[in-house]
Amino acid sequence: MEDLIIIKIGGETINNKETLKTCLRAIAAARQKVILVHGGGKKVTELAQKLFIPQQMVEGRRITSAETLELCTMVYAGLINKNIVAGLSAEKLVAIGLSGADLNCIVSKKRDASVINYGFVGDIVKVDETVFENFIDKNIIPVVNSISISEEGELLNTNADVMAAEIAKAMSANYKVHLLYCFEKNGVLKDITDESSLIPEISKTDFTHMKETKQIADGMIPKLQTAFRALYHGVEEARILKSDALENYFTSEKPGTNISLH
Amino acid sequence: MEDLIIIKIGGETINNKETLKTCLRAIAAARQKVILVHGGGKKVTELAQKLFIPQQMVEGRRITSAETLELCTMVYAGLINKNIVAGLSAEKLVAIGLSGADLNCIVSKKRDASVINYGFVGDIVKVDETVFENFIDKNIIPVVNSISISEEGELLNTNADVMAAEIAKAMSANYKVHLLYCFEKNGVLKDITDESSLIPEISKTDFTHMKETKQIADGMIPKLQTAFRALYHGVEEARILKSDALENYFTSEKPGTNISLH
Repeated sequence: MEDLIIIKIGGETINNKETLKTCLRAIAAARQKVILVHGGGKKVTELAQKLFIPQQMVEGRRITSAETLELCTMVYAGLINKNIVAGLSAEKLVAIGLSGADLNCIVSKKRDASVINYGFVGDIVKVDETVFENFIDKNIIPVVNSISISEEGELLNTNADVMAAEIAKAMSANYKVHLLYCFEKNGVLKDITDESSLIPEISKTDFTHMKETKQIADGMIPKLQTAFRALYHGVEEARILKSDALENYFTSEKPGTNISLH
Repeated sequence: MEDLIIIKIGGETINNKETLKTCLRAIAAARQKVILVHGGGKKVTELAQKLFIPQQMVEGRRITSAETLELCTMVYAGLINKNIVAGLSAEKLVAIGLSGADLNCIVSKKRDASVINYGFVGDIVKVDETVFENFIDKNIIPVVNSISISEEGELLNTNADVMAAEIAKAMSANYKVHLLYCFEKNGVLKDITDESSLIPEISKTDFTHMKETKQIADGMIPKLQTAFRALYHGVEEARILKSDALENYFTSEKPGTNISLH
């Protein structure tokens, strides 16, 4: 099976033009089949502040009112998505921006509101892998933002880490999928304030132990759980790394933290 | 040759959920090959006001600073584009949102700044008609927003009326193209305050005469000029009509103002 690299670009990377360019250059140089996935939460928070639209997060997930959904749709599907597509075009690559609504490629279900009402938040129920296959077979890079669509045609806000993992799982049937979470730190760190404390590999057993002994930052837990689920469903490799190190991933040693089931 | 209907949805239509739904329903019922084109200037103006980003228009065209380009990209390619795509999905149609940057399908050149500096405004130099053909041949509706891309990979703001006409011209090689400009009025009116003063047909000669005698509203002149140019380059039909009348266009008499070369 052919390799497919699914890259989630997150955190500060999206807002830093230079880092983003470094990432896109690395992708251009690698000449591999790639799907990019992104959200853009920080930009939404900034815009919401300027527009006096109050934001509330519960366990790292954004409560999404109708107004906030508009902001997310603007920022994820508009501003960030088109800037990445244009950035790839500047590197002489051909890209297509996709939300889950486009070609109905990522269908979600509005999250049940009985415990916590997250508002317009969707959990993915179906990824149409043929959409992605058709593009990557023509060397077109899908750039996927984290807006999905319900069966009824309603836009919903979705977690970008989960979206990347769901695409990875769906694509594993026909590709050897490598799922890379790129962000601003070197990987999973023993001490979040010390970039040299990188943990090069985390197994499921390590993870359970680290959770119990509270050696792992709260924000990292859902990301790691998502990565483990992807591996469990047939994804070949899952890795958390610094965006600037993406070039190294393609050319030399494997940077960041390797997530492994065993 | 097969018919292809290119519909520019403009003016108030985009901001009025009910009118937009009526339009999308009419498209679903028509079961014809369709390309939708939209801008969203009014929403950009609203957002710019809330964010205290000053806006300046010259001859109906927006001076586009880097900040304003961000707003346009958010509103056109994000908010409005995905809402239309989702609205079509709700009507059980399959749609794909496209800016000119996606698949590099609409390439423009930054407007020369020597007379008036419009900023990040692009004039279209190339429409890749194969992109649109590939989608419409699979009964997928392209929903095109008015952000284009330069050869260098820079996003540029483009007039949506012109974009619709350029796509129409490019598609005329292989389709019988009908170019419809939908907006909030009945068509071209003798008296802009009187909806019953509709002019059912305007020829090139009529237009020249009406311009000279100032019988035509300033805002309508570039739209009509664009329509005439499209007809001159092989477009079969050009028409300006009320968005609510789109259903009538498909089912019965032809509403609005027919623009004709002769």
